[in-house]
Amino acid sequence: MERMVVIGGDAAGMSAASQARRLRAPGELEIVAFERSHFASYSACGIPYWVGGDVGHRDALVARTPQEHRKRGIDLRTRTEVVELDVPGRRVRARDLESGSESWTAYDKLVIATGARPVRPRLPGIDARGVHGVQTLDDGQALLDTLAGLEGRRAVVVGAGYIGVEMAEALLKRGFEVTVVNRGRQPMATLDPDMGRLVHEAMDGLGITTVNDAEVTKILTGPDGRVRAVATEDGEFPADVVVLGIGVEPETALARAAGLPLGTHGGLLTDLSMRVRGYADVWAGGDCVEVLDLVSGRERHIPLGTHANKHGQIIGAGVGGGYATFPGVVGTAVSKVCDLEIARTGLLEKEALAVGLRFVTVTVESTSRAGYYPDAAPMTVKMLAERRTGRLLGVQIVGREGAGKRVDVAAVALTAGMTVERMTALDLGYAPPFSPVWDPVLVAARKATTVVVKAG
Amino acid sequence: MERMVVIGGDAAGMSAASQARRLRAPGELEIVAFERSHFASYSACGIPYWVGGDVGHRDALVARTPQEHRKRGIDLRTRTEVVELDVPGRRVRARDLESGSESWTAYDKLVIATGARPVRPRLPGIDARGVHGVQTLDDGQALLDTLAGLEGRRAVVVGAGYIGVEMAEALLKRGFEVTVVNRGRQPMATLDPDMGRLVHEAMDGLGITTVNDAEVTKILTGPDGRVRAVATEDGEFPADVVVLGIGVEPETALARAAGLPLGTHGGLLTDLSMRVRGYADVWAGGDCVEVLDLVSGRERHIPLGTHANKHGQIIGAGVGGGYATFPGVVGTAVSKVCDLEIARTGLLEKEALAVGLRFVTVTVESTSRAGYYPDAAPMTVKMLAERRTGRLLGVQIVGREGAGKRVDVAAVALTAGMTVERMTALDLGYAPPFSPVWDPVLVAARKATTVVVKAG
Repeated sequence: MERMVVIGGDAAGMSAASQARRLRAPGELEIVAFERSHFASYSACGIPYWVGGDVGHRDALVARTPQEHRKRGIDLRTRTEVVELDVPGRRVRARDLESGSESWTAYDKLVIATGARPVRPRLPGIDARGVHGVQTLDDGQALLDTLAGLEGRRAVVVGAGYIGVEMAEALLKRGFEVTVVNRGRQPMATLDPDMGRLVHEAMDGLGITTVNDAEVTKILTGPDGRVRAVATEDGEFPADVVVLGIGVEPETALARAAGLPLGTHGGLLTDLSMRVRGYADVWAGGDCVEVLDLVSGRERHIPLGTHANKHGQIIGAGVGGGYATFPGVVGTAVSKVCDLEIARTGLLEKEALAVGLRFVTVTVESTSRAGYYPDAAPMTVKMLAERRTGRLLGVQIVGREGAGKRVDVAAVALTAGMTVERMTALDLGYAPPFSPVWDPVLVAARKATTVVVKAG
Repeated sequence: MERMVVIGGDAAGMSAASQARRLRAPGELEIVAFERSHFASYSACGIPYWVGGDVGHRDALVARTPQEHRKRGIDLRTRTEVVELDVPGRRVRARDLESGSESWTAYDKLVIATGARPVRPRLPGIDARGVHGVQTLDDGQALLDTLAGLEGRRAVVVGAGYIGVEMAEALLKRGFEVTVVNRGRQPMATLDPDMGRLVHEAMDGLGITTVNDAEVTKILTGPDGRVRAVATEDGEFPADVVVLGIGVEPETALARAAGLPLGTHGGLLTDLSMRVRGYADVWAGGDCVEVLDLVSGRERHIPLGTHANKHGQIIGAGVGGGYATFPGVVGTAVSKVCDLEIARTGLLEKEALAVGLRFVTVTVESTSRAGYYPDAAPMTVKMLAERRTGRLLGVQIVGREGAGKRVDVAAVALTAGMTVERMTALDLGYAPPFSPVWDPVLVAARKATTVVVKAG
């Protein structure tokens, strides 16, 4: 009998284990999964909504409990950390975090799904009480415990990317005065600055203070050792609690030590079937790998649960004797801060420039429904199209209800390599409660077509 | 100076006129548009929401008034009906509906945008007082006047297509007891019956009575000449007001009399630039033409404002000396009845069979948001994929908030000729407030892929 070993029990790892189990019975394939936390198969992306109170209980974020996995014939070992990977010897060394005991487990097929770790700059005071990351359920619980015990209501969020703005919303909902300290020119560096400015304005409107172009230099603590402020070169921001939302990087220390191939972003490099390049029996997926960006032709690191689940599915098929591939991504992301919806797909201006593309940009204002229909909400759509060919390169949308998921139309068009002119003829769903007669994405495509023709 | 003559002043006609005017100044091109009603450029699709009270005033449905068109150098003549078309003589005969006087107008370029007329079966009593169509703003006003004067609260809607269910919602909102009399097995013949059944159940839940497999045989009137009931072979349905929502057919009597080419659905046939086939200086667009269905390869008649606007844009470019084409449609439509959203794109089962396609179908249940996020709403997605090739053939969605516009992803995938397996890797926007980690459309694509592989 063969043994499949999975390192990391969240989305990619447990999807892979579950899919392999569907294809191969316990009598044919033994599956052992190591997870260092208390939890498996949980939604890290849901943590801001749990902290903010939209989701009532931590357990709601757990898609499948360890017990459920075990019932399905997956030997899931939580609180067990893999500390060494011996690829030539086809075995991993794991430590039981409760007892401290260690042992080697042999594998025939290995899946590396070690995820990502939050960027945690080595600043004075970063480990003070009251400074929190929000990567794991344990992190979320620790933050909630801190919030429950606080008298002060001043929160500082470091970072204004997806996690930063989502945590700003969560803390606002918990009744905090929220300041977001942001290194970039505008919040949401995943948008062009002109679109990020719209997010900044909306956050202002919500009562969230955003400080741009601000690098945190240290965390100041009080006599009790608790955080009291966040310092930048230009000032201090009083804080009863600090949330770090600076981003994450691939957790690939084990893989690096084992000599597996890593890319420029520090993530594992795989082939289209999610096998680690050059290794027939080692797969990797989720937040610890780099993925091919189909628009730029470059590898990127995009930690997102939706990709991790797809990777797991493909790895499980491969281990189970099936066949599936992951062709790559187009860089779609969607988020919200209160009722402001924020979405992008494809390339930003700077990303397009970096790979040698020349392009035109257009920005249009439209509405989510026919203008005369109740609750028609405004949205701004920015579109990039390649010069001469008119190929769609990217779309960014900022708006209210109904704005965010409109980016999907552009994501599919990007995948298909459509030109903006071809997009103008797309047969999208129209009725007054759902869209203006020209969908906002098509309005942008129409304008972009005109500009491409003029630019020549 | 050349003269462009437009027959029909709604979406297609006035979009064509406006686009031609943008490209050619009044000194280069004279534009005359004839419209038999009082209004131009109005949203017929908005009438149910005006009747239902979501839209407060008729004028909100008018995108541009006749005065505004005239200010932009378009000689729009309302209440003027074209009664004859002399193609060899390059002229049209128009009648002023106020004075009854008639005159000929010569053209260099002609645009036929005569729209569609409601199907009005020649039944006894069909012209009785209290029986209404809802095709034009004048129709909508007449219905509202009737409703305002009524004491009884029983409404019968004949037909359970888009207009039928939208009018059922409108009358429900006006406080009527609504019965929908439907010829088909289920409401929404634009869906497969298994999906139509979900609409039926939801309408039941809303308190709308739907009578299926029922052919109306006559309209019964009282001694005052007003409608009192709708009769079918099986029974009578008391009615204080009757709304006809049976559908529409191309309004092509003029074109037929002039010998222009019509298709099997009675609509004008055009080339890709929306020129009437075989006629260099005659264009046609909107509800009076047939369009190429890119999935079936057949012509269809799809009366929808969104297509009419696109046709107008393309015709205006052609008349104005530019270049644009309309490649065809994939048959996307979206609607709602109260909070139930209904959408389809591509082919139904019977439509696929009719063109010789063999296919598999899958139906999945999912939710609009992550299951743990507040207001995650259920939806049912049905998908058709071609056997062996796995090419997507069609998608139908019935659900609550967030269901309808998800069909757009499938519409773009159909346009691009994607297989369901390729769709499973689509990089769609994911965050808990916007989608489960696998978007419902991708869940269906994943299941369809498995079934295609098994079916061989």
